[in-house]
Amino acid sequence: MADPVPGAADPAARAATAADSGIVLVDCPDEVGLIHRITGVLFARRLNIENNQEFVDTAARHFFFRAEVAAGVAGPAAAAGLVEDLNAVLPAGARVRVTRGGVRPIVIMGSLEPHCLGELLLLAASGDLPCTIRAVVGNHDRLRGLTERFGVPFHHVAAPAAGADDAARLAHEAILERAIMPHAPDYLVLARYMRVLSAGFVDRWAGRIVNIHHSFLPAFAGAAPYRQAFVRGVKLIGATAHFVTRDLDEGPIIAQDVIPVDHGFTPERMARAGRDVEKLVLARAVRLLLEERVFVHGRRTIVFA
Amino acid sequence: MADPVPGAADPAARAATAADSGIVLVDCPDEVGLIHRITGVLFARRLNIENNQEFVDTAARHFFFRAEVAAGVAGPAAAAGLVEDLNAVLPAGARVRVTRGGVRPIVIMGSLEPHCLGELLLLAASGDLPCTIRAVVGNHDRLRGLTERFGVPFHHVAAPAAGADDAARLAHEAILERAIMPHAPDYLVLARYMRVLSAGFVDRWAGRIVNIHHSFLPAFAGAAPYRQAFVRGVKLIGATAHFVTRDLDEGPIIAQDVIPVDHGFTPERMARAGRDVEKLVLARAVRLLLEERVFVHGRRTIVFA
Amino acid sequence: MADPVPGAADPAARAATAADSGIVLVDCPDEVGLIHRITGVLFARRLNIENNQEFVDTAARHFFFRAEVAAGVAGPAAAAGLVEDLNAVLPAGARVRVTRGGVRPIVIMGSLEPHCLGELLLLAASGDLPCTIRAVVGNHDRLRGLTERFGVPFHHVAAPAAGADDAARLAHEAILERAIMPHAPDYLVLARYMRVLSAGFVDRWAGRIVNIHHSFLPAFAGAAPYRQAFVRGVKLIGATAHFVTRDLDEGPIIAQDVIPVDHGFTPERMARAGRDVEKLVLARAVRLLLEERVFVHGRRTIVFA
Amino acid sequence: MADPVPGAADPAARAATAADSGIVLVDCPDEVGLIHRITGVLFARRLNIENNQEFVDTAARHFFFRAEVAAGVAGPAAAAGLVEDLNAVLPAGARVRVTRGGVRPIVIMGSLEPHCLGELLLLAASGDLPCTIRAVVGNHDRLRGLTERFGVPFHHVAAPAAGADDAARLAHEAILERAIMPHAPDYLVLARYMRVLSAGFVDRWAGRIVNIHHSFLPAFAGAAPYRQAFVRGVKLIGATAHFVTRDLDEGPIIAQDVIPVDHGFTPERMARAGRDVEKLVLARAVRLLLEERVFVHGRRTIVFA
Repeated sequence: MADPVPGAADPAARAATAADSGIVLVDCPDEVGLIHRITGVLFARRLNIENNQEFVDTAARHFFFRAEVAAGVAGPAAAAGLVEDLNAVLPAGARVRVTRGGVRPIVIMGSLEPHCLGELLLLAASGDLPCTIRAVVGNHDRLRGLTERFGVPFHHVAAPAAGADDAARLAHEAILERAIMPHAPDYLVLARYMRVLSAGFVDRWAGRIVNIHHSFLPAFAGAAPYRQAFVRGVKLIGATAHFVTRDLDEGPIIAQDVIPVDHGFTPERMARAGRDVEKLVLARAVRLLLEERVFVHGRRTIVFA
Repeated sequence: MADPVPGAADPAARAATAADSGIVLVDCPDEVGLIHRITGVLFARRLNIENNQEFVDTAARHFFFRAEVAAGVAGPAAAAGLVEDLNAVLPAGARVRVTRGGVRPIVIMGSLEPHCLGELLLLAASGDLPCTIRAVVGNHDRLRGLTERFGVPFHHVAAPAAGADDAARLAHEAILERAIMPHAPDYLVLARYMRVLSAGFVDRWAGRIVNIHHSFLPAFAGAAPYRQAFVRGVKLIGATAHFVTRDLDEGPIIAQDVIPVDHGFTPERMARAGRDVEKLVLARAVRLLLEERVFVHGRRTIVFA
Repeated sequence: MADPVPGAADPAARAATAADSGIVLVDCPDEVGLIHRITGVLFARRLNIENNQEFVDTAARHFFFRAEVAAGVAGPAAAAGLVEDLNAVLPAGARVRVTRGGVRPIVIMGSLEPHCLGELLLLAASGDLPCTIRAVVGNHDRLRGLTERFGVPFHHVAAPAAGADDAARLAHEAILERAIMPHAPDYLVLARYMRVLSAGFVDRWAGRIVNIHHSFLPAFAGAAPYRQAFVRGVKLIGATAHFVTRDLDEGPIIAQDVIPVDHGFTPERMARAGRDVEKLVLARAVRLLLEERVFVHGRRTIVFA
Repeated sequence: MADPVPGAADPAARAATAADSGIVLVDCPDEVGLIHRITGVLFARRLNIENNQEFVDTAARHFFFRAEVAAGVAGPAAAAGLVEDLNAVLPAGARVRVTRGGVRPIVIMGSLEPHCLGELLLLAASGDLPCTIRAVVGNHDRLRGLTERFGVPFHHVAAPAAGADDAARLAHEAILERAIMPHAPDYLVLARYMRVLSAGFVDRWAGRIVNIHHSFLPAFAGAAPYRQAFVRGVKLIGATAHFVTRDLDEGPIIAQDVIPVDHGFTPERMARAGRDVEKLVLARAVRLLLEERVFVHGRRTIVFA
């Protein structure tokens, strides 16, 4: 890999600083006294809570909790002990995770448009997003130059033609995954990747693929959302970052934003103006995932921003 | 009618001030030289253009023009002469309108929710919206007190039960229109009016009914949009002011806006937060209509804001 | 007092519903284990936390906590016992407050402009803001009609001329306070009130007066902010709701917002467009205060929205 | 220069496409009939107006006009003839400019922060901003790597120490200008450049230097605006792109935007969140300048967006 951008904060150095800190994530059926029990476990281990947030979905009677603790969960053993202690005081069915802060590996998938990829490359290179972009995989070769400028490997995996049968599509995805796997990414980020992934692929990466769709979903799902927006004559256009599930453009939403447009916006001008909101919304969602701020609960997300 | 709110600017006085001024509206197939021809006609009549805007829909090859002129179109005769002169220099199929500035009569239709009605009553009473609210018509009696506080007549026209047949619905609308007609409104404003109007009613008021829908259309058309928004887990909720056409929630959009929400918003809390954006978007659309800033072209609007 | 607006939720009924619930507010020097201790006290009393938020100002090493508890703090005795128990586990210097949810009495002070007053009257009348507007006090008589339409008493206390001496100003304020005191308001809301209050007045109501200033402070403090904004050629105008302190326009900020403007906005047009943002920002701040979501810490506020 | 980013639209190709089109800019004292006269000149030359905007500053009685014309102003001779014809029908004191659309040369000046520079490099490389970044000049060497990745020359011109005398500062600027001049830029873009430029430098580039300041001016001019914002406890932070004049942070404003913050934002977190708004506001202003959409009139700008 090439030199990092001179003058940028060193992501590895940041990770080192935060290496002793950790994030504690709990979700479970709601009960009286949960916070008291959880903070009791943390207090017994002298873990100082720097920041914590909780939320009770009163309709679903479900409890969500996230805390950043300052020190002492550094080693895997310590983390495992903490999980065990927390499970001991929590109701059955609780999900507990303890992770260390720091830099995560991701792989980006792209097609033709450079703006979302460029945003992520710049943020990662300047230490402004806690991840290492291990590789970019494209079904076109067009984003190779931009990617390699940042010293990131680029894999071109040509996709089969639009009318290809399922076997051809699955074969294509098998090659994709062979390109991805050695990089062991925590997340796959679809940065205006223009192919639909198979149910099998999506299931293997469940909860770990984020996509940016260039509309305020659920409006204008599917193809050519700016053209749809133009035809309908809306006065706002937007972008939606969401988890990828089997149902196209139906996954849980992580972040959304919009910008105003007027009658003077052709679909092309919408597309140009929309790039800014697309790249910012995707980067926001990726940051939330990397910082472990997102719970999925059914079709909805709990986001501790 | 009761006294206007003391201390508010007097809408009639404002109208008087602007009475000699006028608005010139043109739309026609596009050609080279249209602005030169139109401004030539205005110049020949010594009409000073205070403000003008034009737009060419290049795909549809259609031209839209709006000008505010300072003086000299005061009488109906002068206006008619101006229309004639403009038509003489414009291509076949041109639509030309000349209107005087000033206060317009409107009727508001409401059901149960007071916030949109209250906003319009306050704005009109303080001279901040160039209209006279001649009456409020409700299919419930609930908004009578609020309406009458502002000295505005309230007509309660009880609607037939939900499962009523077409004859009952049309009979209901006939009573509605009998209540409305004596007030001779330029526009009907549906301020969270909860009934669907018949095709016949809509056709008779074509281009003159504005509705507020409590979602960013086309997302969440139809019933209970906040509940739909909650179920889908969106991160923005919005409101849309649109012309009412035969197709429910499909009319040309005049104004839209959104506000952020998060996982902590139940449908009820969305409804409360959404009231502010609903009332502002509706008031914005009504102002645009009253100031003759909106052209309809197919399913889209040209808004010279 | 006149009838409430028919069809509106009844504020008293809402208060009754919430009467058994309460809000627990704590701020104190930060220490390890505070949340555990506080939740322990609540748990021991079987108080179910429906919602809680905490914040540590790490620079100032100060801790802030707010919880809504479902039941059991209804009576003053219960509340007093809870405060005592909490103080027993908290560090020296802790401030603990336990309040019951419900409707609070406020008094509004106004001058000439009706939009902020109208917004608050509508919200309170429709049960959409948990307060009773006990009275409106004006240094002009202009807002009497609007106020009395909502069945709220209006007191006109004519102010001395601009060049009046201190004795005249203090005499004026004494009359003001005599008009206010019988209404026993929790908060005084300055809804575009155009007089500067004396240090003595401000001190007597410390932390209980909220003002709306029509700029994004600290830009354009003082007189004629829209004219200042026009002269400077800014592209955004805004409004700021803040506590009133001895230093004009320098009190801790509770809420702010802005809207875009362009070169076409004269100071007059800014003023008209700004009314919407002024009224919404003031109403937002008043709601935050009524719901006990605001801590003041030096010149800054902690707002648990 | 290195290859452009593969897959990006070719800026030179775009320029070629637009080479025959042009932009006509007029500002002059206001009179009746100006639009008619200007459009008459354009019509006589068979120049089709694709888009035009005008504005009258009624207080200053000054007229501003911008039109995009489709073809026929390609050569310098044609442009000169058009200017002459327009001047012949316009009042004394009119300023008329005719420019060809297309790609403009710019030079960027930077110091330490990469986000604004990175945004402009990405946009220019993908053909998304109609300019060629001819060079980047830095008073530190830190942004060299980022710049050279995009095949753009980087010049490091070390600045004298903070306490240096005027002679040293002027000598430094002389070296700066020697680095800049061979690139013949239309505009100098200060992308978080941290030095104050001398009056002489500013005068030589009058109307051609744009700066991004990291606050919503006029609030928090000068040093450390995020720290100032933190201390004052504002609920919005922003960025302002403005022309550089002799008075620091006082030049005419081109674009501004803000984002919400709360009590949880330290100055450091404000700085991180603010980067997005800084880079977008600067890029928006640079685009407006490149597309000839900005008139300066005293301390204010007219922006035909």
